Amino acid sequence: MASLDSVLSCIDLNLDRSLDRLFDLLRIPSISTDPRYAEDCRKAADFLAGDLAAIGFEASVRDTPGHPMVLARHEGPAGAPHVLFYGHYDVQPVDPLELWTSDPFDPVIREDANGRKRIVARGAADDKGQLMTFVEACRAYKAETGSLPCGVTILFEGEEESGSPSLLPFLEAHRAELKADAALVCDTNMWDRDTPAISTGLRGLVGEEVVVKAANRDLHSGYYGGAAANPIRILSKIIADLHDADGRVTLPGFYDGVDEVPDDVKAQWNALNFSESDFLGEVGLSVPAGETGRSVLEQTWSRPTAEVNGMIGGYTGAGFKTVIAAEAKAKISFRLVFRQDPAAIRKAFRQFVEDRLPADCTAEFHPHGGSPAIQLPFDSPWIAAASEALSQEWPNKAAMIGMGGSIPIAGEFKNQLGMETLLVGFGNGDDAIHSPNEKYEMSSFHRGQRSWARILDRLGRGV
Amino acid sequence: MASLDSVLSCIDLNLDRSLDRLFDLLRIPSISTDPRYAEDCRKAADFLAGDLAAIGFEASVRDTPGHPMVLARHEGPAGAPHVLFYGHYDVQPVDPLELWTSDPFDPVIREDANGRKRIVARGAADDKGQLMTFVEACRAYKAETGSLPCGVTILFEGEEESGSPSLLPFLEAHRAELKADAALVCDTNMWDRDTPAISTGLRGLVGEEVVVKAANRDLHSGYYGGAAANPIRILSKIIADLHDADGRVTLPGFYDGVDEVPDDVKAQWNALNFSESDFLGEVGLSVPAGETGRSVLEQTWSRPTAEVNGMIGGYTGAGFKTVIAAEAKAKISFRLVFRQDPAAIRKAFRQFVEDRLPADCTAEFHPHGGSPAIQLPFDSPWIAAASEALSQEWPNKAAMIGMGGSIPIAGEFKNQLGMETLLVGFGNGDDAIHSPNEKYEMSSFHRGQRSWARILDRLGRGV
Repeated sequence: MASLDSVLSCIDLNLDRSLDRLFDLLRIPSISTDPRYAEDCRKAADFLAGDLAAIGFEASVRDTPGHPMVLARHEGPAGAPHVLFYGHYDVQPVDPLELWTSDPFDPVIREDANGRKRIVARGAADDKGQLMTFVEACRAYKAETGSLPCGVTILFEGEEESGSPSLLPFLEAHRAELKADAALVCDTNMWDRDTPAISTGLRGLVGEEVVVKAANRDLHSGYYGGAAANPIRILSKIIADLHDADGRVTLPGFYDGVDEVPDDVKAQWNALNFSESDFLGEVGLSVPAGETGRSVLEQTWSRPTAEVNGMIGGYTGAGFKTVIAAEAKAKISFRLVFRQDPAAIRKAFRQFVEDRLPADCTAEFHPHGGSPAIQLPFDSPWIAAASEALSQEWPNKAAMIGMGGSIPIAGEFKNQLGMETLLVGFGNGDDAIHSPNEKYEMSSFHRGQRSWARILDRLGRGV
Repeated sequence: MASLDSVLSCIDLNLDRSLDRLFDLLRIPSISTDPRYAEDCRKAADFLAGDLAAIGFEASVRDTPGHPMVLARHEGPAGAPHVLFYGHYDVQPVDPLELWTSDPFDPVIREDANGRKRIVARGAADDKGQLMTFVEACRAYKAETGSLPCGVTILFEGEEESGSPSLLPFLEAHRAELKADAALVCDTNMWDRDTPAISTGLRGLVGEEVVVKAANRDLHSGYYGGAAANPIRILSKIIADLHDADGRVTLPGFYDGVDEVPDDVKAQWNALNFSESDFLGEVGLSVPAGETGRSVLEQTWSRPTAEVNGMIGGYTGAGFKTVIAAEAKAKISFRLVFRQDPAAIRKAFRQFVEDRLPADCTAEFHPHGGSPAIQLPFDSPWIAAASEALSQEWPNKAAMIGMGGSIPIAGEFKNQLGMETLLVGFGNGDDAIHSPNEKYEMSSFHRGQRSWARILDRLGRGV
């Protein structure tokens, strides 16, 4: 324990310097979905590879057809396990920019009403702040002990916010380099400020853009209205048809592979004392809008969804334009659970749309990522070890929770490399990731580093 | 007839100069719906007032809370009727700009495949080219005879493309100045290239923007998806509900005041040899998409509609963003026929939306213009006189037709000033008004001027 204690002290003493490094990374606008920021994505990758090399990793930037990967490796003591840590350096777009109280790429530290410090910037939580907690733990270990307690491979990708198109080919091409005993991911939340969490389930994701087209040009709604097909109306009808009155998705076969959560797991979830009214109230809502008769935790952790993430057609500027648009577009995503098949669901959706196209109308489809859900065994020894370490750092014992979000890599680690993935993150529910004024708590950043030091120490002593 | 002949010659000889004047007007980007072009709207008004004064009208620009009016007056011979001519100098927005083959505000003359010349610019047909046909007819009359054959008041507004908010108050405030024996409007189409048309019916319009709001900010569709209300989905459902399976509008009371067209009128329409397949085929369609069992002419001339003219919500940029939007917006318009009441329909729509809002959701409404339909008596002596004059200019006799579009002023002339409105225009169905590459045929511009000279001459001889 002597060396762990000195590592933890080292982290405490160097918090300001670790913040400087995080701020340098946050200043790079690495928005992966927008081609205008491709250079910045590479800049973020170069930054991270350089930083890992400085710590003592063998680190490199690897090109892909999209944004590059950062791959770094450091051997551990003989007999110790080897882990693969995954994070992503890309961030979400920042619109609507006018709702930010400061420049999203000029990080600042603010105090909240309770005097707690928070780091405000795009990517502060998702995922730059989180991934740096692990990097800083490794740095402190090396500084204090000259080594790491287990072998560590680090993989940072730059396309997580845009469907990870290069990830699977990269895993397939570098299986040997990436293979480890288990994977660690830091892209998730605490249960609450005092309770760390290990996520045992993650929803999968199918993203799809559909463009419905009718006339060969925009039409005057006076001359043609009543006779011409209106793509916005047709697309609206398709979207409306996607759910029944009970909030269930109507795609044929959609619920194939969806299990009911076992009663004992539901009992654990109930014991978490989750407040639906707080969860919804924080964003201005009060009633769960999903499937009738399901709790919010069920709706977001164990049930699949269909959501429209964006839609546009016709004239949307100031004033009014009496036009019938030639086309209308929607970005639609499905969150998947258990054994739902992303390919089958994409196919069913396309057929669903085709079946509803009236005469003279066509649909174009553009895929945006697809990944299955993952579901870990509750009795995994990796979970037990991480839980033990986390419970020493935080006031409360670690909670085993589900997750509504999707981290495609976790499913692929299982499929491609046969590894379990330990999802441990230090975000909070109000971090506003994907929204204006994203933040990461200073305590998340600080104790996150300490938590990883404890987990590495614990794993080094055997799983 | 001697003076009419010399006026017609004068028009023929001065065609190039009349084109120069039209081009000067077309170069002014008077887009009324976009506040950035307010100065240009005033510039267009000043241009027209100056031109009318140069002809010999008593002309002025009149301020309104929105864009200004142009009002001009020229007395006629004692005992001759006095007419009010109406047009609008404002134009539609130009997006999508990339589909224009030349700058929308740098007019050019192009030849089509048949060697016919066409004037290409935003507003070439709607309505700058059309209104200038009347102005040029007056100019030629004054040049050749020193007077006009009947009294003429001219009213040009600058808000026709954005719901005419200032028009009704202006009519109410200037009844005495505007009162005439009949109104003339040049904002409609020919039946075909050889057949002039007088429109006996015009659909009314109710424009409404609706904003559906749910959460107080954009949400991550992973964390909240399944539990949070999605405004795009809710608005899509509302839009889908607006029509039944037969294409009828489902708003309660929507069809109050909608008559069936008498059989003899339907017989006249059938005699026009209208080709549904040509009309739809020209814009890439083949099947009438409106109410089941109605012809295209019925659907566009005598039946009311509900159309979505624009819709937007969530992330619509490049790539994908897994967001649940805080709000979604749609611009919706209703075309009205016969005695449908715009106020009642606006109210019914708002109630329809409110009735379909789930818990935690609200709707905001922004009105964008409302006007009833107009329906002229088929036996009007004004129609007979105009028909006689038009039939002398063009190869074929004038057709009495319905109109799918809305010209709010026509209803208000009836309500406020007790006048019938004669709708005579020289546009063609492929003029692409409201679309990229709007054009006006050179023959429309030339023979339109000659047609107005003939109509003024004929009206001057008594109705």
